[in-house]
Amino acid sequence: MKWRKSLYDIIEVADEQNTLSKLYDWMMMIVIVVSIIPLAVRNANELTQMLDFVTVIIFIIDYILRLLTADLKLKKGKKSFAEYPFTPMAVIDLVSILPSVTLLNSSLKLLRLFRLFRTFRVFRVFKVIRYSKSINIIINVFKKQREALLVVGGLAIGYIVISALIMFNVESATFPSFFDAVYWATVSLTTVGYGDIYAVSTIGKVITMLSSVFGIAIVALPAGIVTAGYMEEINKDESL
Amino acid sequence: MKWRKSLYDIIEVADEQNTLSKLYDWMMMIVIVVSIIPLAVRNANELTQMLDFVTVIIFIIDYILRLLTADLKLKKGKKSFAEYPFTPMAVIDLVSILPSVTLLNSSLKLLRLFRLFRTFRVFRVFKVIRYSKSINIIINVFKKQREALLVVGGLAIGYIVISALIMFNVESATFPSFFDAVYWATVSLTTVGYGDIYAVSTIGKVITMLSSVFGIAIVALPAGIVTAGYMEEINKDESL
Amino acid sequence: MKWRKSLYDIIEVADEQNTLSKLYDWMMMIVIVVSIIPLAVRNANELTQMLDFVTVIIFIIDYILRLLTADLKLKKGKKSFAEYPFTPMAVIDLVSILPSVTLLNSSLKLLRLFRLFRTFRVFRVFKVIRYSKSINIIINVFKKQREALLVVGGLAIGYIVISALIMFNVESATFPSFFDAVYWATVSLTTVGYGDIYAVSTIGKVITMLSSVFGIAIVALPAGIVTAGYMEEINKDESL
Amino acid sequence: MKWRKSLYDIIEVADEQNTLSKLYDWMMMIVIVVSIIPLAVRNANELTQMLDFVTVIIFIIDYILRLLTADLKLKKGKKSFAEYPFTPMAVIDLVSILPSVTLLNSSLKLLRLFRLFRTFRVFRVFKVIRYSKSINIIINVFKKQREALLVVGGLAIGYIVISALIMFNVESATFPSFFDAVYWATVSLTTVGYGDIYAVSTIGKVITMLSSVFGIAIVALPAGIVTAGYMEEINKDESL
Repeated sequence: MKWRKSLYDIIEVADEQNTLSKLYDWMMMIVIVVSIIPLAVRNANELTQMLDFVTVIIFIIDYILRLLTADLKLKKGKKSFAEYPFTPMAVIDLVSILPSVTLLNSSLKLLRLFRLFRTFRVFRVFKVIRYSKSINIIINVFKKQREALLVVGGLAIGYIVISALIMFNVESATFPSFFDAVYWATVSLTTVGYGDIYAVSTIGKVITMLSSVFGIAIVALPAGIVTAGYMEEINKDESL
Repeated sequence: MKWRKSLYDIIEVADEQNTLSKLYDWMMMIVIVVSIIPLAVRNANELTQMLDFVTVIIFIIDYILRLLTADLKLKKGKKSFAEYPFTPMAVIDLVSILPSVTLLNSSLKLLRLFRLFRTFRVFRVFKVIRYSKSINIIINVFKKQREALLVVGGLAIGYIVISALIMFNVESATFPSFFDAVYWATVSLTTVGYGDIYAVSTIGKVITMLSSVFGIAIVALPAGIVTAGYMEEINKDESL
Repeated sequence: MKWRKSLYDIIEVADEQNTLSKLYDWMMMIVIVVSIIPLAVRNANELTQMLDFVTVIIFIIDYILRLLTADLKLKKGKKSFAEYPFTPMAVIDLVSILPSVTLLNSSLKLLRLFRLFRTFRVFRVFKVIRYSKSINIIINVFKKQREALLVVGGLAIGYIVISALIMFNVESATFPSFFDAVYWATVSLTTVGYGDIYAVSTIGKVITMLSSVFGIAIVALPAGIVTAGYMEEINKDESL
Repeated sequence: MKWRKSLYDIIEVADEQNTLSKLYDWMMMIVIVVSIIPLAVRNANELTQMLDFVTVIIFIIDYILRLLTADLKLKKGKKSFAEYPFTPMAVIDLVSILPSVTLLNSSLKLLRLFRLFRTFRVFRVFKVIRYSKSINIIINVFKKQREALLVVGGLAIGYIVISALIMFNVESATFPSFFDAVYWATVSLTTVGYGDIYAVSTIGKVITMLSSVFGIAIVALPAGIVTAGYMEEINKDESL
């Protein structure tokens, strides 16, 4: 029991005094960054396969160690070991390991699904959240203003659906599917405007103009909410 | 009289204790969302026609029920029944029903106008406003800062007209009609920039640069106004 | 002397009680808007020529009336009549009249310069500033934060020049002239991004990425300054 | 020793009373601006070579004078003369001089590297920072909010890497190299959207939409942080 407590302190507790804990955190950070490298290379070579192999082994060990100390984390006795794999972070951990495991087996029948699995492997990046502190300040702003941002998000989605619906029905030639209209509306609202799809009819252009002008308001809202939230957080810090 | 009072409580009053009222609101929310589905499909099939038929019937019943209880809403006695159909929300309700009614009749002579009517049907989406609460917070910010936002809107329109006028007269080849120049100015001001139309002459490019830089100020203004408005609303909430 | 005082009250003083003054202001507003219509039509026809003729006549009368009451405005005695034509608003007035006067003479030798003159005619739009009140609120924000906005403007220009210089020297093939590089930098900084000109080399793309990321900061600054200025103006209004 | 003190006062100390110091600052400002002109011209002609020659001579004299008074600046005795060339500003000064010196020698073997060196010459622009005051206000905002902005920068880079990784693995045809995917992600996040590279597959477009919407939050954050920082600086100024 005692070694499990020490282990738990190292891998889970963020204790500045514990040198081993800090060392473990930094090692994991580096392993995560290294584990991403093979994803950025098209043709797997010996080096990327090796990096993949080593990092996945470390991730598996990390996963097992976390599972072994699950009762110390969740404080629900033996039930913790059954519950832990379903906590959000454990699911991310598992999903980030799984595709590489299938890669290691190199089973032929999974070859086609392989590409999609590879994209899931990218989720391993989110592990960084666990090992970073300063991001918490920003997260707090988003947490406090969650409701307002959800409303704005809802407004934006509603706006995208409405303008997509109008465009889809007004300009059939430009937008072969409703999905194309939604894609156009999103790219226009966010003012990205690649230019791969755009209205050509007069009515379509009028709607484009209304949409882009209205879009500024939708963009100004989250900026305003985030600013207000951030200023509150700063003032709170200073009054303490 | 009594059943009309209960009916009014169900369809119009937002009473958290009244289970039937809440049930009605949620049912209408679902019906509105379902009613939009046929608009997102190009070729009408049996399912979309059925969805259209059912949702329109419910909208008609809803419209009649609201008309029957108009005197309880407007509190102007019998005059209310004549006035109600001209209130903004009643007009939106009617406009959202009308095109589908003509669809149900499937009159051949309206076939050409049919497409334009279909786009009007999209207005039914705005019914959501009636059945949502949290949006009111955002609406309040826009209401309070309405005047300032109107000024900015006026500035933006003035700016669009001016730069469109200059461009239209300077670069005739690129902008065949004044409408094209207005379209270009709007897409440039909002920084969407599809790239389907842009200045090619040196003078045109100079104006483009001035326009886009000036455009940032026009975009910064609504952001500032919304932020200031939102911070006021938050502070008011906290001081209560 | 008395009729000149009354005239001055009508055309210059913004007196809510003076019905004639208000009438004059509204008439001028309409005349200005009407005078722009011929600018938005490619081929001059009888109607546009008539509109041009009538509005220019009114502008000339307005200019003469203002010149006649210059001593009441500038309060410098007879010197006012010589000084008035050089005040900014008088120059705008004159510039907006001049091109149409040359048009009325239809002198053949000015035919080539005609196009450039036409664009100057657009300046007549700025006359609106004289006849609008609510815009003053926004103008105040810009006046108070003028210095900060000038610094940001200077930073933006400096940034544009620097990235244009780098691009011009690194990617000669894409940017034939330094002007093209400045145009590209401006369109990229303001996140318009038409896509008519963009870097194709690896070094060019790296600079594009640095530029666009850095550009966000340059865009965030005026937004922040305007927001801060607007909030101050609001708080001042409330404390009064 | 005395003449070195006077020299130091002229070239380094920002003393409003010292006319010679102000004159020197203004002269250097003009020389810096003039020195950039040859960079904006493709084919070197006699004028640009002359401008290059004269400005570089002045920069070399300026560099030597600063080196001679290094002990007065760093206050570390004779060690100052060895340390000074490694201070950030001295490095910028030297880097901005070096390429032109090699140009003056016109050594043939450096001809190929010449282009890259030329881009380094652009760094001379940063000398302006030394001779400008009002920029300090903006710099202060960035200094105070440095940590928050670094976190946002980190988030943005993380976001760019993640979406680039997903895109690179999902849509191989559109993104031949990982660098292309990173370029696409950056141009999309900053809402520039040239349209030279964009997703064509359905999954790719879905990720594009998520990316651009999420990108608004990433853009809203620095705007919020800068606004909050700027308002603090203003309030501090007023309470003094």
